[in-house]
Amino acid sequence: MDAIIAGIGQTEFSKNSGRSRLQLAVEAAKAAISDAGLTPADIDGSVSFTHDENDESAVLTNLGIPRLRFTSRTPGGGGGSCATIQHAAAAVVSGQASAVLVWRAFNERSESRFGQPTQGALDPAWSFHLPFGLDTPAKIYGLTFQRYMHRYGLTNADFGEYTVVARQYAATNPNAWFYQRPITIEDHQASRWIVEPLLRLLDCCQESDGGVALVVTTADRAPDLPRPAARVAAASSAYLRGGHHLFNYHHADLSTFVEAAALADDLWAQSGYGPSDMDVAMIYENFSPVVFMQLEALGFCGPGEARDLIAGGGIGPGGQIPVNTNGGLLGEGYVHGMNNIVEGVRQLRGTAPNQVAGAQRVLVSAGRSGLVLDRP
Amino acid sequence: MDAIIAGIGQTEFSKNSGRSRLQLAVEAAKAAISDAGLTPADIDGSVSFTHDENDESAVLTNLGIPRLRFTSRTPGGGGGSCATIQHAAAAVVSGQASAVLVWRAFNERSESRFGQPTQGALDPAWSFHLPFGLDTPAKIYGLTFQRYMHRYGLTNADFGEYTVVARQYAATNPNAWFYQRPITIEDHQASRWIVEPLLRLLDCCQESDGGVALVVTTADRAPDLPRPAARVAAASSAYLRGGHHLFNYHHADLSTFVEAAALADDLWAQSGYGPSDMDVAMIYENFSPVVFMQLEALGFCGPGEARDLIAGGGIGPGGQIPVNTNGGLLGEGYVHGMNNIVEGVRQLRGTAPNQVAGAQRVLVSAGRSGLVLDRP
Repeated sequence: MDAIIAGIGQTEFSKNSGRSRLQLAVEAAKAAISDAGLTPADIDGSVSFTHDENDESAVLTNLGIPRLRFTSRTPGGGGGSCATIQHAAAAVVSGQASAVLVWRAFNERSESRFGQPTQGALDPAWSFHLPFGLDTPAKIYGLTFQRYMHRYGLTNADFGEYTVVARQYAATNPNAWFYQRPITIEDHQASRWIVEPLLRLLDCCQESDGGVALVVTTADRAPDLPRPAARVAAASSAYLRGGHHLFNYHHADLSTFVEAAALADDLWAQSGYGPSDMDVAMIYENFSPVVFMQLEALGFCGPGEARDLIAGGGIGPGGQIPVNTNGGLLGEGYVHGMNNIVEGVRQLRGTAPNQVAGAQRVLVSAGRSGLVLDRP
Repeated sequence: MDAIIAGIGQTEFSKNSGRSRLQLAVEAAKAAISDAGLTPADIDGSVSFTHDENDESAVLTNLGIPRLRFTSRTPGGGGGSCATIQHAAAAVVSGQASAVLVWRAFNERSESRFGQPTQGALDPAWSFHLPFGLDTPAKIYGLTFQRYMHRYGLTNADFGEYTVVARQYAATNPNAWFYQRPITIEDHQASRWIVEPLLRLLDCCQESDGGVALVVTTADRAPDLPRPAARVAAASSAYLRGGHHLFNYHHADLSTFVEAAALADDLWAQSGYGPSDMDVAMIYENFSPVVFMQLEALGFCGPGEARDLIAGGGIGPGGQIPVNTNGGLLGEGYVHGMNNIVEGVRQLRGTAPNQVAGAQRVLVSAGRSGLVLDRP
């Protein structure tokens, strides 16, 4: 894989941006293109989410990009966030584009809130679940979390240990919504139940307004860039037979995140690295238990061992594998996982707010899509 | 570009399939995988349209595909149809997948009909046009067609010349909805106005129920395939600044299809071919005038010359450049342009219902995305 992330850009992450999603996309994109030392005229490809409501034509016209030769969308919500970089890498490596703009922008707090109950069926799959009350992501994922908790004997307080670490990182990250607002485990346990006895308010990712963009190009350009590039050492996705990006109840073992395990096999094989080679792990967490299940599936610890890894300080500053050093989607903001990729690039550049000294290799996982980034 | 189309599959094209869009997708996919001499276990990537309502998970589970490593969607409706093959080619050439299933399936006649007036705004762009009555594709594209007609002095009867040829091809294509039902120019002129004085009923593509699928893999597999492969000699897309996939009124010259012209530059540069090297051209036609505008933009004739090319027999059997030899989207069926790609492959295999003798090179254009196919 000879692709690099050459530029990163973002807006502020807020609860009410006060401007359109198109403006957020364009602001983030402009920042990313500039960060890569490019101009809009250099961009000839784009990737976003199927869920992103900005039209390619509007984005390119407002940026002043003359032409796109490649444009794609990744399905599957936040689980597909790392697949944006996978698409872009495929486009530049295959010669279908030379520099690809990746963006995601929304007003997910001030406009349509993902955390609110679904009003109607978006997909036929909902018809089997909505009648039973599965009308929010917290409830939908909750069934899986409950099995995980039962199997390994966890309680909600165990999940709080992750949340405290995420908020610790966020507290020293000026980009983070929860900048300078750390919490204690007591704060976590005092927050209200969202899905009892699984998830409290502080286990849930934020709903954020904001935009994130990245620029992907070929590795041969790395020496000419104004800032250090992050090489895409591996990129893959994992959709498994019998799976579903929401209602993933049909695998034999619900306490294992089998998509993340399959993904990890690909990422380690492609990159030639393993978990112990990673200096930082950025792990998509719509809800705190997902970090536990991914740490295990990705090979950072054995099944059921995430509790001890986290409670023992293994993911915090100076730990065995610092996780979500920006505060993650709980602490920094929720731009559908894309802000975690940006943080991965910052770590490799040495410009992260909570910099891991000398970070050389970063895993970014959204569970169903993931990346290994290193230095070119 | 070292990608090939190894398999093609489709359902019947009807007005009432009597089964779900998922079943149509799976039937077409199963046929394409089998046609390529593969099994579902060999497939590890997928591409469809953002508009396709089948979830990847449902398609792969019903086919028995164990895992997908790459999955993408092409935006922009039928104009993006050839970009499906572009994505798949990028995936296999870059090593992100080894065999990619491309599908599109819908009940576009018996369920939601594209040709009916839009009930509400799907995209903010509609807000500027819906109040002025632009509520169907025929009306929306009509403004552009009117400019083209005015500039070159065409009347609706000129468009009928294309329709007669398309229906001639369809009449001898057993896959076509209009099999054995050719028309005369008098029939065309007797059909009712849809947008007077631009488009009559017989200028409009069909609304069809059906599914189409293709399998893309790497060229090194071509010698092992049960059937001749079609090499992807070029693949590109064209989104231009100021453009829009529906409301494309902001370019300086509305009588020229500038996206198709930009696309053609890429396709000829990538493939090393030019218009005169093509043996067949498959041209997306939601409405008959689009063929005229694309023939000119793609370089098969000069500006304003499509009328004489078509009326002179240039696109019919034995003509200078046979166009839409399956009957096109007017004559064979409308599966969002994907059936035109399948026909391109059939021509290269020598198995088309209206075979162009010894066809070696085929252009497939959806105006905003396109392919050059040849023999490996």
